Amino acid sequence: MADKAGDLFRFPEAPSSPPPEFDSAFRRHFLELLVWRRDVRRFRSDPVSDELVRELISMARLAPSVGLSEPWRFVRIGSPARRAAVRENFLACNADALSSYSGDRAEQYAHLKLEGLDTAPVHLAVFVDPDPDQGHGLGRKTMPETVAYSAAMAIYTLWLAARTHRVGVGWVSILTPKDIVRALDVPENWRFIAYLCVGYPAEESPSPALSRAGWEQRSEPAGFLIER
Amino acid sequence: MADKAGDLFRFPEAPSSPPPEFDSAFRRHFLELLVWRRDVRRFRSDPVSDELVRELISMARLAPSVGLSEPWRFVRIGSPARRAAVRENFLACNADALSSYSGDRAEQYAHLKLEGLDTAPVHLAVFVDPDPDQGHGLGRKTMPETVAYSAAMAIYTLWLAARTHRVGVGWVSILTPKDIVRALDVPENWRFIAYLCVGYPAEESPSPALSRAGWEQRSEPAGFLIER
Repeated sequence: MADKAGDLFRFPEAPSSPPPEFDSAFRRHFLELLVWRRDVRRFRSDPVSDELVRELISMARLAPSVGLSEPWRFVRIGSPARRAAVRENFLACNADALSSYSGDRAEQYAHLKLEGLDTAPVHLAVFVDPDPDQGHGLGRKTMPETVAYSAAMAIYTLWLAARTHRVGVGWVSILTPKDIVRALDVPENWRFIAYLCVGYPAEESPSPALSRAGWEQRSEPAGFLIER
Repeated sequence: MADKAGDLFRFPEAPSSPPPEFDSAFRRHFLELLVWRRDVRRFRSDPVSDELVRELISMARLAPSVGLSEPWRFVRIGSPARRAAVRENFLACNADALSSYSGDRAEQYAHLKLEGLDTAPVHLAVFVDPDPDQGHGLGRKTMPETVAYSAAMAIYTLWLAARTHRVGVGWVSILTPKDIVRALDVPENWRFIAYLCVGYPAEESPSPALSRAGWEQRSEPAGFLIER
């Protein structure tokens, strides 16, 4: 399935087998995958193999995309100078965010670990082409933001696939999009979606780090579903 | 795990077991889940049980959300009048979209099946509260759009979970958000993300319907990953 040209996989589209059945054991494991996913900020320094990184990005491409536009663009950042520029932007944005809180909340914010930029072995940035030719505009005339939603689903695909290998992903959003576009030298019309730290997590837990740190709790299930 | 008050599940947050291991058999089935997901437009009329619908929405809440803000809001639409209003909006938007194409492309567009509004037994609309108190603003000061990305990931969670039960989901985006907010009588500040048709699919395939219909093909894997 490996693709020499692009180093990413090509997935077969012809049904080579009958539709798969998913049994209750699979569903139980899938629920565990969702429960134990986590937004990771503390990484071990062990490398993640290039082969696995390419496999994860290949799988991300199986996400739904509006009009089959596949608008996502993945950038792998190896350059220390570019990583430093991203980190500098994070520090400025985070200082600014901290200044918007006061009292105990500010104290608490200052102690949160909100990125794994220093330790994560793999850095990926995700952008979208906001108006790709591919897809011929289908499905996004009234909702052009669906290209960004497609990328969010590609990221989540990669995130879950990573977790099946016990690899963690942390989505950093405390960044200014225009500065990241410039720091990574991508086309100016691309829209920045996410900066992902990828690596083996230092800890594993079924509860969100922000919940464990006392910043916020999941809310009660009632209230998410309303009837009309 | 069932929650009587909200009819949605509450997930345990305390580690009741060691971190799960995912073996190669699970990973192979997970890949099949991604490959066979599909954006479904042709549904059988068989009902989907209320219990399963609630289970799927409960699982959607395990998606990542910026600052643990859980900004997603699910609306289940049973009212024939509201369903008709949504359908009317789709027809107007789709006629408008058709008029933007010409020649063979217009002919092809006119023959695409882009929604399952008439046959899908379950209709769900997804919105976000664009500036929820929950999460205390963390992670979205420079990128407020991350609340919408959180909802996209919740939708994708539901979508994959549905597929493990052989239930299909079709995301309809050929709608005008302000009209859907009005038609479904939700708070005016909520942002419309998606209208989902949910039901048992009339057909199953590992290739996208738009690909089978000749509208668009997946592109070559090269080009999605660039190095910096």
